Amino acid sequence: MAATPSAIAVDAGGSTTRAVVVDREGACGPVVRNGAGNPVSGPQRAAAHIAEACVAAVAASTHQPDLVVATVAGILSRDFPELGHALAEHGLPTRLVLVSDLLGAYFSGTSAPKGAVMIVGTGAVAAQVSGGQLSEVRDGLGWLLGDTGSGFWIGHQVARAVAADLDGRGPSTALTTRVLHTLGDVPRRVGVRNSELAALLTWTQSRQPVELAQLAVLAADEASSDEVARQICEQAAAHVLATLDSLPGIGDGPVVLGGGVLDPIGPVGKRVHDALAGRAQRVSDGVAGAALLAIRQLGGRADAPMLARVTQGLVSP
Amino acid sequence: MAATPSAIAVDAGGSTTRAVVVDREGACGPVVRNGAGNPVSGPQRAAAHIAEACVAAVAASTHQPDLVVATVAGILSRDFPELGHALAEHGLPTRLVLVSDLLGAYFSGTSAPKGAVMIVGTGAVAAQVSGGQLSEVRDGLGWLLGDTGSGFWIGHQVARAVAADLDGRGPSTALTTRVLHTLGDVPRRVGVRNSELAALLTWTQSRQPVELAQLAVLAADEASSDEVARQICEQAAAHVLATLDSLPGIGDGPVVLGGGVLDPIGPVGKRVHDALAGRAQRVSDGVAGAALLAIRQLGGRADAPMLARVTQGLVSP
Repeated sequence: MAATPSAIAVDAGGSTTRAVVVDREGACGPVVRNGAGNPVSGPQRAAAHIAEACVAAVAASTHQPDLVVATVAGILSRDFPELGHALAEHGLPTRLVLVSDLLGAYFSGTSAPKGAVMIVGTGAVAAQVSGGQLSEVRDGLGWLLGDTGSGFWIGHQVARAVAADLDGRGPSTALTTRVLHTLGDVPRRVGVRNSELAALLTWTQSRQPVELAQLAVLAADEASSDEVARQICEQAAAHVLATLDSLPGIGDGPVVLGGGVLDPIGPVGKRVHDALAGRAQRVSDGVAGAALLAIRQLGGRADAPMLARVTQGLVSP
Repeated sequence: MAATPSAIAVDAGGSTTRAVVVDREGACGPVVRNGAGNPVSGPQRAAAHIAEACVAAVAASTHQPDLVVATVAGILSRDFPELGHALAEHGLPTRLVLVSDLLGAYFSGTSAPKGAVMIVGTGAVAAQVSGGQLSEVRDGLGWLLGDTGSGFWIGHQVARAVAADLDGRGPSTALTTRVLHTLGDVPRRVGVRNSELAALLTWTQSRQPVELAQLAVLAADEASSDEVARQICEQAAAHVLATLDSLPGIGDGPVVLGGGVLDPIGPVGKRVHDALAGRAQRVSDGVAGAALLAIRQLGGRADAPMLARVTQGLVSP
């Protein structure tokens, strides 16, 4: 079996990198996890995290892979030369195929050559897949210009709703108590503002705007009992569905959904899954898709039985 | 006349500082203009601008004032010790009364002790005045948490609408051509995005978010003929009116409106003025109010005839 061609499949995410050795027949080694592999927040460090994960995945495998297939966020708009250097330094295969994390997520959910994928975490991005490639991308424009319906978008709406409540401009909401509890002990400014509003201002001003995404979970928590939270989640789901609807020609193909906001256990994910009925396919990461793309690179069959085998193999190698 | 008690009235704005010597009877010297006097963006420099304006105002006057009354943005939430030092260094009166720019704007429009004031420029803030003092403040919470309906808010909506248009997620809008023209020659990113969308991303990422306020004027320009622009302006006006409505107990008193967005020549200002019918009073700056507050400090009558005299005197001293 060690003679079967094999590859290292990598899902380089914004918080976790996953690597696994997979052979052309879909047999998988253990999945190795490491820190963030997204080059956006430091390409050197991301490359090191990926290379370390690859070294460990090879060590845990009986194969000697000669190819790395990595699905990487943000790879549509930037190069990642640091990764090639890091692989070489670690004595890893330097034959490297970089693919968008959108394709990794997509092929974690389906082997169909045509369909759609949407990932909604801190950001929100959707794509159409045609002939196994990304053919159209929507949103993913960042918190200031886009990411509509994303975790940032929800958290920002939560913060603005709480500010309006404390300011006497907006409806009373259970989110206010929840957010103030999240803030913890914040130095209070002195002035004409009430101290809770001052605390919220101080908290946000001492952070990057994108960190408001961490308040999104409060909207999910309160959506079943609080009207303000319910509306925020409903609007987020409507935005997500509108972004998907803006993709041309996905027809009735599969729609693969990734990212924490689209977890069907939460109110936004539930609405989106319900609206898509049986077409929605939930994925929790992109490592199975990276493995399927690697199998295709190795000349294997990247079809539904193979995806099933890989998915099963990743759970219990 | 030189024996009549007098003061230097200062309106220290975010882009312009105005200073004038006024006596207890409402006689005004020439108005002197200088650079920004708002301590938020550098208290030392703001203090120097104010002191220089005061020196020039005194030099242009026959009075020897022994008091400075300055209306300053942001003074509700911070001290401004640099100003006292700058006045002393320039041999100016060190008897200093600092007042919110909201009160300066309010008393530029009315001498009534009870009413409301709202300033909508880059930001948006409203206040209730009772007994000649600020009794309640609404919004003014900055672009991330508040400033609903402000120039930033409008410009942000413009940028997001243009991004959605270019991304195929939103309706076509005349704002897109206008914004792309505003961007000028921007380095284009290479990637899956169309080059106009890439240019917009590059432009915004190379600036502070608050600079999106400069796109607000495009919404005003296009509001009469473009549906997207019209809706943005309508929503901004609705937000402004909601913020005013959230002030308790302004009854049917005067509502003083300042800031470029509320200029009745523009679509947002027009809607707000129309909604307030005869109660709205437009002011272009706060120097008359600073002068009226100075007259009150000097023991003069700060009533309607006095405001009329001051306003007339500022136009043609």
